[in-house]
Amino acid sequence: MTAAHLLSARWIVPVEPAGITLEHHSLLVEDGVITALLPTAEAHRRHPDVTETRLDSHALIPGLVNLHTHAAMSLMRGLKDDLPLMTWLKEHIWPAENRHVSAEFVQDGSLLACAEMLRAGVTCFNDMYFFPEATADAVLASGMRAALGIITLDFPSSYAGDPEDYLRKGLAVRDAYKGESRLSFTMAPHAPYTVSDRTLTKILTLADQLELPIHMHLHETADEIAGSLAEHQVRPLTRLQALGLLGPTLIAVHMVHLNEAEIELIARAGVHVAHCPSSNLKLASGIAPVPALLAAGVNVALGTDGAASNNRLDLLNEARTAALLAKGSTGEPTALTAHQALAMATLHGARALGLDARIGSLVPGKAADIVAVDLSELETLPCYDVVSHLVYAAGREHISHVWVEGELLLDARVLTKLDERELMAKASHWNRILGAKT
Amino acid sequence: MTAAHLLSARWIVPVEPAGITLEHHSLLVEDGVITALLPTAEAHRRHPDVTETRLDSHALIPGLVNLHTHAAMSLMRGLKDDLPLMTWLKEHIWPAENRHVSAEFVQDGSLLACAEMLRAGVTCFNDMYFFPEATADAVLASGMRAALGIITLDFPSSYAGDPEDYLRKGLAVRDAYKGESRLSFTMAPHAPYTVSDRTLTKILTLADQLELPIHMHLHETADEIAGSLAEHQVRPLTRLQALGLLGPTLIAVHMVHLNEAEIELIARAGVHVAHCPSSNLKLASGIAPVPALLAAGVNVALGTDGAASNNRLDLLNEARTAALLAKGSTGEPTALTAHQALAMATLHGARALGLDARIGSLVPGKAADIVAVDLSELETLPCYDVVSHLVYAAGREHISHVWVEGELLLDARVLTKLDERELMAKASHWNRILGAKT
Repeated sequence: MTAAHLLSARWIVPVEPAGITLEHHSLLVEDGVITALLPTAEAHRRHPDVTETRLDSHALIPGLVNLHTHAAMSLMRGLKDDLPLMTWLKEHIWPAENRHVSAEFVQDGSLLACAEMLRAGVTCFNDMYFFPEATADAVLASGMRAALGIITLDFPSSYAGDPEDYLRKGLAVRDAYKGESRLSFTMAPHAPYTVSDRTLTKILTLADQLELPIHMHLHETADEIAGSLAEHQVRPLTRLQALGLLGPTLIAVHMVHLNEAEIELIARAGVHVAHCPSSNLKLASGIAPVPALLAAGVNVALGTDGAASNNRLDLLNEARTAALLAKGSTGEPTALTAHQALAMATLHGARALGLDARIGSLVPGKAADIVAVDLSELETLPCYDVVSHLVYAAGREHISHVWVEGELLLDARVLTKLDERELMAKASHWNRILGAKT
Repeated sequence: MTAAHLLSARWIVPVEPAGITLEHHSLLVEDGVITALLPTAEAHRRHPDVTETRLDSHALIPGLVNLHTHAAMSLMRGLKDDLPLMTWLKEHIWPAENRHVSAEFVQDGSLLACAEMLRAGVTCFNDMYFFPEATADAVLASGMRAALGIITLDFPSSYAGDPEDYLRKGLAVRDAYKGESRLSFTMAPHAPYTVSDRTLTKILTLADQLELPIHMHLHETADEIAGSLAEHQVRPLTRLQALGLLGPTLIAVHMVHLNEAEIELIARAGVHVAHCPSSNLKLASGIAPVPALLAAGVNVALGTDGAASNNRLDLLNEARTAALLAKGSTGEPTALTAHQALAMATLHGARALGLDARIGSLVPGKAADIVAVDLSELETLPCYDVVSHLVYAAGREHISHVWVEGELLLDARVLTKLDERELMAKASHWNRILGAKT
């Protein structure tokens, strides 16, 4: 992309200010940054010589931010479904991870996930998995943006032997990729039941020193809470509070099981929530109290979780599911509007990652992470309300173009930097290995 | 299509017998009927001269049966969302219907809906709306199959003045289209709160005489039940039981609010349930107790409801939502499997319509209503379990081919009988009219 470029669209939904849909407007993009948002007629007068992309039946929205995934697990998509959680984990997922997960597995799986996410309008994802350096390479190859977790468990894996080993390896990855503008890092203690107090304390110190968010599964299942009560005599949130982890650097993933006091507690502390509705339903964890969290002022964003428990990395679908589920579970059709759902899928995720000064909305000064959705297909006609269509009617298949830092990564649904045939070959390779009878 | 044709696919999921996925099999189709299902190698030996369509990365499944919709309401897709139900109905939907609904509106809206449904793999839908003759014409033009409701209310509309008028007009439509193999009819009393005992009794008599199913909204909202208690001193189901309506000819739509005795009652009576999970969530009606209904032996099938309350006519998505919601709302990851969800989206709907001898599964002797889903896209790789992918990972965009009675209606995602440009023009026309400020 040359230094200056105009993107002129039938509609622009900037997300900031909230609730606005602009018609016949243009974004001026210079060196990967949005420098103006103005009516198209005015853009033509002011910038007559700038190259223009016309999107006459499209809505431009901020790139979607997937606030929780395990990208490499795309290679385990549908490996086993419809099983009790512990049977699924202990007899299928964990053995498969122990046997097969390597840097090569993670890179191939992450590439596949990046391709799928770009085709679904996701420009940034918050990842937690083994061998984050392999995911980093995949992200750089794809051109998209990611926050990579410095994953830590108290248990050994094919990646690391003990907490110190996880931390040492993860911090080394951060050092190695420090100059990359599209990569950021989080401290990623896996979950309350897999990380000890001692390790959590160390992680908190590191997060403070390095100014990194903390990305952690929390209050996902009733079992997790019962286990914490048995082992620590308190619920996980109370334990993390005592350790000093609750604060605006914490991205708490799932948060399905919460009482009123806990909702108030995390609201006061400024904890961010990554809501993963499909995964919570599919694994039968339950339904997170999203309307209550929003009412308390908590920043709630959306995640797909990994493809093994969803089984699609389709954040627009999560926005739809989140809106529908909030209404259906509370009996209030106004519980979560389409505008709120779109903000959760974009700006709220950026805010949780501490990246909202750079991404999450289409305002001058932010990076040109932009998605075009074609609303001229039969599935989105007629069109009375663009944002309603984006959330309730459109599918990922209507996403036509994706830019990150002004770089075109999806062009009329074709990936510009990743080779689909090569990805298919890699997927087939792992399909044979993981699908083999053992 | 010539008299004989082979469809050879990587996978075939016949739905009957339950739980089976065949690899490298073929369907022999003769004069619109499936006459054999056999391994492709054997098909080549036995039928060397028959024309063959090879679908080497596809799964063939029975055409999806949408057991509840209001096709013409596609023209009201997203007209107003995120409003309280009564505000939405009284201030927006009903006034729009009174002002705009005509035979022309219904035909154009139904054509748009048929196009959307075919592109989503739906080969048969069960409709309830005004001017059913206009929907009949649209269905015949599209080549798909439909059961059209002889809609009846005690209230006047732009279509009819009183119950007798509704019935007279509806029965005349049935007479006029009686010879059409792809059309069938139902008696369609709108809902307990819009149809009197007197009218219901008349409808029951007609249904018995004409051997037609009865298609009716039932136990959708808590308000409906409270209203019935206030007016009739009993819940709607009890009232219908007293009138003699509960039986295997009744297709009860929604059934969100049910107590244990009611579940037993409808199971014993053989009532069919059309579960519309997205609509029930979006309108905040609640979550139907589907696992309990299935456990009691009730035949539960799936519907999209109209596009005004969904806002997509995407039955595969309803299958996914139904499976996820059943798990998430019960805490049981095995509550509704992918295989069950697919059967609900096909065979169960056919059974409710009394059409299961002709459609709903891929077995010799049934009509060749067939859908091909391409599982070679990045979103469905790798593939360990075809049915898991169909329900959890694939989207409507992966549906490549659709046949009804062996006639190809969608060919590599292109509609063969409907003109997309013409449909877009019609949608724009109504967009201007309904979208105009009043």
